[in-house]
Amino acid sequence: MRLGLDIGGTKIDAVALGADDAVLARVRIPTGFGPHAVLANAQAAAAQVAAAAGGGVATIAAVGIGIPGIVDSSAGVVRHAVNLGVDELALGAELSALLDTPVTIENDVNAASLGAYRMLGLERSAAYLNLGTGLAAGFVLDGELWRGVRGTAGEIGHIPIDPAGEICACGQRGCLETVASGGWLARKWPTAAALPVLDVFDRADEGDPRAITLRDQLVDGAAAAVRILVLTVDVDTVVIGGGLSNLGSRLFDRIVIALDAQARTSQFLGSLALASRVRLVPLEQPIAAIGAALAASPTGESIRI
Amino acid sequence: MRLGLDIGGTKIDAVALGADDAVLARVRIPTGFGPHAVLANAQAAAAQVAAAAGGGVATIAAVGIGIPGIVDSSAGVVRHAVNLGVDELALGAELSALLDTPVTIENDVNAASLGAYRMLGLERSAAYLNLGTGLAAGFVLDGELWRGVRGTAGEIGHIPIDPAGEICACGQRGCLETVASGGWLARKWPTAAALPVLDVFDRADEGDPRAITLRDQLVDGAAAAVRILVLTVDVDTVVIGGGLSNLGSRLFDRIVIALDAQARTSQFLGSLALASRVRLVPLEQPIAAIGAALAASPTGESIRI
Repeated sequence: MRLGLDIGGTKIDAVALGADDAVLARVRIPTGFGPHAVLANAQAAAAQVAAAAGGGVATIAAVGIGIPGIVDSSAGVVRHAVNLGVDELALGAELSALLDTPVTIENDVNAASLGAYRMLGLERSAAYLNLGTGLAAGFVLDGELWRGVRGTAGEIGHIPIDPAGEICACGQRGCLETVASGGWLARKWPTAAALPVLDVFDRADEGDPRAITLRDQLVDGAAAAVRILVLTVDVDTVVIGGGLSNLGSRLFDRIVIALDAQARTSQFLGSLALASRVRLVPLEQPIAAIGAALAASPTGESIRI
Repeated sequence: MRLGLDIGGTKIDAVALGADDAVLARVRIPTGFGPHAVLANAQAAAAQVAAAAGGGVATIAAVGIGIPGIVDSSAGVVRHAVNLGVDELALGAELSALLDTPVTIENDVNAASLGAYRMLGLERSAAYLNLGTGLAAGFVLDGELWRGVRGTAGEIGHIPIDPAGEICACGQRGCLETVASGGWLARKWPTAAALPVLDVFDRADEGDPRAITLRDQLVDGAAAAVRILVLTVDVDTVVIGGGLSNLGSRLFDRIVIALDAQARTSQFLGSLALASRVRLVPLEQPIAAIGAALAASPTGESIRI
C-alpha cells in the first residue's frame, strides 16, 4: 500500500491507499513543532495508519508527503515551513531511513492538486486554486504535477492586480492575495469570532456594508485568479479549494456568478466559458493526504495519475 | 528535409531545414489575401524553398506552418485570421494534398516560441513573450509546446492589471495589452511616422514627457508580463520577441532595469531573479519559420525539440 501524509500547522492527516487507490484507513495526530517533532510524528502517523489498514510498516510500498514551505522534491528537503517551526529538514531522506521505504515530498498545494484531480475524476489538465491564509495554485497537466522549474509555479497570489491596492507582505502593491486570502480578510475585519471569514460572510448576509465590500472583493479576487490561471495556462478546470472553500456554495456560487457577470461584459471572456470550468473541491475528503499518497513513487520516477 | 512557413500579414517567410536542423535555404514571397491566395502562395513558397535547398517537393519530409488566428492544430484548421482575409481554412489538409506530405499548423506565437527556444539553445522550460500589435505568450515546457486545453494558453494580454485602466477591445478594463502593445501605443501616439513605437522611443530620448510616460508604461507592462509568466508557470526563461523586439536593447535593457528595480522593492521578487531570466530573441533569425519547421511532424506525433 501507499501512504499519504498531509502535514499541516496543527495536525498530520494520514491515509493508506490500497492497490486500487481506495482509502483503506485514515489517522490524524498532532504535528508538533520543530524538525524533531515533525519527523517523529510523521513516522508515528505512518506506522499508525499502516496498522489501521491492517499492515505493518513492512507492507508500505511508498510514502508521499504534502507539507507547507519551500519544497525541493528532487532533494526531498523542505525549507521555511514557518508554521511548523522547520527552517530546513531533509524529510525525504530521514523518514525514508526510519521507515525503510521510498518517501516523496511535495508542496502541500501540489499534493492537494493531485488529490482534487483524482477525487473529482478530472482528465487532461487542471489547476487547483488554494484560497487559504494565502492564495496560491497548483497544476496537474496531462495527469502530471507541474511544479515549475524552481518549484514556484502557481505563486499567483503575488501578481499585482491594482496599482492603487495595499502594500503586500511581499513588498509589492495590490497583489491578488491582498484582496482574496483569509489572512488579509482577517486583518481587515478584526473580530473575536473564531473564523473571521465566516463572520464576514454572516455579517454581509445581514447587510453590513463593509462586510459586503470585503466579501465581494474576495469573490472578485478569486474570479480574477481563475481568469489568470485559464488565460495563462489554459487548463480545462480550476478547482476551488483551501480553507476558505469550507464556506462551500456560499463562496463557490458567488465565484460562479462573478465569472458569469464578467463574461457578459466581454465576448472574449464569454468564449472562454470560465463559469463552467470551475469546480468546488470535495469538502468531505482528505484530498491533500490522498494527493500525497498518489505522489508517492516507489521508483522515484515522476508519477502520472 | 523539413520546411517551415511563417505566414504573416504581408509575407510568407519560408525555410528549409536539413537533417541537423541547419537552415539550408530561405525564401520570402507575398502572402496575398483570402483563403485561395494564402493556400496557393503557401504551396509556392514550399516549392521555391525546397528548390532553393536543392530538392524537389518529393524531398520534403514534412511541412510546419505558423499562422495568426485561432489555430486548431489537431484538425489542421485556422480560423479568424483577419489580417489574411481568412475566416476558416483547412490549411493542413489542403496543403498536405497539394504537396503530398504531412503538414502541421501552429499558432504563429507558438511557432516562434519553438524557434526562439532552439535558436537560443534553451533547455527545460521557457515562455516566449510576443510584444507586437497585441501581447501574447507561448510556452515550451520540457522541450514540448504547451498549447493549453483549448489552444488559448498564453493569452495574458487580456489579464487586467489596473481597475482604473482603459477599456480594452475585449471588453475588460485595464488589460495588460492596453499598456504594453504596439497597437495601443499607436492609438495613443498619433503620428505620420511609419513606426509609431520607434517614434515614441525617439521622442522619449529627446525628453518629450508624454513619450516618456508611454514608453515607461510599455516597459513596465512588459515587465509585468514577465512576472505573470514566471509566477504562474515558473519557466526558466522568458524570451522577449515580437515586432517591438526589433527595438533591440533600447527596449530590452529597459525591461531588465524595470525588473531589477522591482526586485529591490520586494525580497520575494528578488528571490525569483527575474532580470536574469529574460532573453532577447535573436533578431537576425527567421525564428517563427524555423520554429514552424521544428513543429513539422512527419508522423503527426507531438514533437519534443
